[in-house]
Amino acid sequence: MGARGQLTREAILATARVRAAGFGLHGLSIGALAKALDMSKSGLYAHFASKEALQLAVIDTAAAQFTDEVVTPALKTARGEARVRAVFDGWCAWLMRQETPGCLFIAAASELDDQPGPVRDHVVGHQRDLIDFLERVVGTATANGDFRADLDLAQFAFELHGLILAFHHDTRLLVDSNARERVQRGFDRLVADANAA
Amino acid sequence: MGARGQLTREAILATARVRAAGFGLHGLSIGALAKALDMSKSGLYAHFASKEALQLAVIDTAAAQFTDEVVTPALKTARGEARVRAVFDGWCAWLMRQETPGCLFIAAASELDDQPGPVRDHVVGHQRDLIDFLERVVGTATANGDFRADLDLAQFAFELHGLILAFHHDTRLLVDSNARERVQRGFDRLVADANAA
Repeated sequence: MGARGQLTREAILATARVRAAGFGLHGLSIGALAKALDMSKSGLYAHFASKEALQLAVIDTAAAQFTDEVVTPALKTARGEARVRAVFDGWCAWLMRQETPGCLFIAAASELDDQPGPVRDHVVGHQRDLIDFLERVVGTATANGDFRADLDLAQFAFELHGLILAFHHDTRLLVDSNARERVQRGFDRLVADANAA
Repeated sequence: MGARGQLTREAILATARVRAAGFGLHGLSIGALAKALDMSKSGLYAHFASKEALQLAVIDTAAAQFTDEVVTPALKTARGEARVRAVFDGWCAWLMRQETPGCLFIAAASELDDQPGPVRDHVVGHQRDLIDFLERVVGTATANGDFRADLDLAQFAFELHGLILAFHHDTRLLVDSNARERVQRGFDRLVADANAA
């Protein structure tokens, strides 16, 4: 694909992502998307062979952006509690960024939980990767002695994920200005319970 | 409205709710719904004057069911920690019930967070009611001495909500059989931190 084709592909994905955040992944009709982009349907099909191919690409784009903006910077910090805090801070900042059209994964998780198929499987795969990543980061803190050695990594990751979901809900749906402080207090309590005695 | 009209209205709402859980509230087209119910569009309009009226009614139906199945039974238990636990247990059971087509409110919260309008306002109103209810129930536990007097009720409600959201995610999307035990451990830690010294 030439540079121009690559740019078109990126423009399609950017528009598709905004639409998916607003209307769900199933709402990504090739027809409506072609209209929004002022392209022909056949022009759009030249980039994505099917609605499903487009849905999978949108999911991968959102995951890659999360990796760039949250995962990679956190991996550059020191192993241990500092890195756990970097993940938390980066994740909150990611959700607060107003140009991001809601979190595609949180929306997709609700949309797809009862709809078996390749798109759901793809989202599940990314979410498992995310949870594995969280557990590995928390594991650096048990390994270096910041957190107690018998800490249940999966339990910590579960509770951290819950705090993030409540924060997303309160800040984006309720527009509650206390949400950032609340999630910080919950996180600090979680870390304090995990700290080595 | 006669008894037959009432039954039709209930059938429309039940079908609409399943569709809303799968395709989002915006996916409630009068045309598609009429087709699914084998009714004429004009027959459906006789019950709901607009798509928006239907969306609002679906939201209210789900909220009323939550009240019947979670709120009302909890209010029959003793005030204090027992009642907080009854809310938690009932809420988890509600989310695990396989006949419920996902949680409409969790899906709607993600779908609508960036879409201003009456439907979003309606969901926000119900979510605020839910959080107020949680805070009041936790308040019965600070009032009777089960929980410490200086407990931040809003903080407790925020963290409880987060645990529930993580549980919903892991049990429905990931189909993780450990989710019920994880949410219980998180809840028990939250309660232990709240208990009077």
